[in-house]
Amino acid sequence: MRDASFAQLPAPPYYAVIFSSRRTPGDEGYGAMGERMATLAQQQPGFLGIESARDADGFGITVSYWTDEASIRAWKHHAEHRIAQETGIQSWYQHYETRVAKVERAYSLK
Amino acid sequence: MRDASFAQLPAPPYYAVIFSSRRTPGDEGYGAMGERMATLAQQQPGFLGIESARDADGFGITVSYWTDEASIRAWKHHAEHRIAQETGIQSWYQHYETRVAKVERAYSLK
Repeated sequence: MRDASFAQLPAPPYYAVIFSSRRTPGDEGYGAMGERMATLAQQQPGFLGIESARDADGFGITVSYWTDEASIRAWKHHAEHRIAQETGIQSWYQHYETRVAKVERAYSLK
Repeated sequence: MRDASFAQLPAPPYYAVIFSSRRTPGDEGYGAMGERMATLAQQQPGFLGIESARDADGFGITVSYWTDEASIRAWKHHAEHRIAQETGIQSWYQHYETRVAKVERAYSLK
């Protein structure tokens, strides 16, 4: 059975948004909003996949994959996503870093 | 105080190696080798930083950052790292995916 934590991606090139974050303590609606954002992202043009992991101490990395930069910009400015971003800045994250990158090659465990 | 889980990086462009993996159960020397590889990676030419998170259920993402692709290739072929990669394939990982990407822009929580 396929491991659903891994994104199923086409051959490169495509784009990655690497989002590293440290959560604040407590949920404060984060879990529900995270699920809603994951569902919404998957409905956006150019979305290819998403992978996410978070340590027990609240440091996490989420990488979303997109066909092109225009799709990334459109998602960044999506109205409902913007509200989530604002709440993230205000409540959920002590700190975060976002890096937008072009994936040039990929390989996996044979 | 700075949160050491976040890499301190220069302005883009630079390169990222996104390594997603699912661990097998048990340590089997993984913890010690992981620490050794992190130390060794930091000594390599072109190394910029590393960020890593793993879920309680064994899915993890590690992103290492490098000045250029030549540095990434050199590290991939480093003798001690190759032994670790072999052991990873044989023992530590159920599955993994590696993606090499050029970071074009970056922003952070203000």
